[in-house]
Amino acid sequence: MEESLKFYTEVLGMVIVEPLESMGPTKGSAVTLKSQGSEQILELNHYEDDSPFCSRYVNGEELDHIAFDVHDLTATVEELKRKRVEVLVEPGAIGGAIGWKEAYVKDPNGIWIELLERK
Amino acid sequence: MEESLKFYTEVLGMVIVEPLESMGPTKGSAVTLKSQGSEQILELNHYEDDSPFCSRYVNGEELDHIAFDVHDLTATVEELKRKRVEVLVEPGAIGGAIGWKEAYVKDPNGIWIELLERK
Repeated sequence: MEESLKFYTEVLGMVIVEPLESMGPTKGSAVTLKSQGSEQILELNHYEDDSPFCSRYVNGEELDHIAFDVHDLTATVEELKRKRVEVLVEPGAIGGAIGWKEAYVKDPNGIWIELLERK
Repeated sequence: MEESLKFYTEVLGMVIVEPLESMGPTKGSAVTLKSQGSEQILELNHYEDDSPFCSRYVNGEELDHIAFDVHDLTATVEELKRKRVEVLVEPGAIGGAIGWKEAYVKDPNGIWIELLERK
């Protein structure tokens, strides 16, 4: 949780909506975040080892990745590289028919993050 | 893809932003959806069995669920039940300290969907 929270706030610049809070009954903790200027909420969850909701961490195929709109894809990726974020797909390597540009980076848990510059 | 697209449009009422399109190089297909009145995009992806991006479907722990704001949680859940959607957590069974009400239902791939009525 600590590492992820640091990544999403300090590296990606999201702001905290509801502060990190521990829930007794679930032995979990949660914090909600949003990007500045957005109403879309991202919730980070962590469960203690002895929580009934705790399970082995698995990278799945079902919900594949999250995406953020960016204004300048090249500049964003360069900045994230300086902050030692792993870049999985460089800008320009793939792109849809409608000319959007995208890149992918990795969060501390290995989750793919799409950065999307829309025309 | 067909079953999921039907679920998200006909059952949940989302609308298509970019129509279903097949991408030759990846042997994949994608469609983007949004809820009416929202700018948030949900992308559905499917890859053919012989696509380099095709992998065994796995329910993971990393991106746990997606959530939709609803105006009337009880009415929404009743409507989804009539449409034969599986309800995983009934309204009122759990809830945060700030009084939001929530329920969980399942999509055709087993993905948990949170329905959230915020105060």
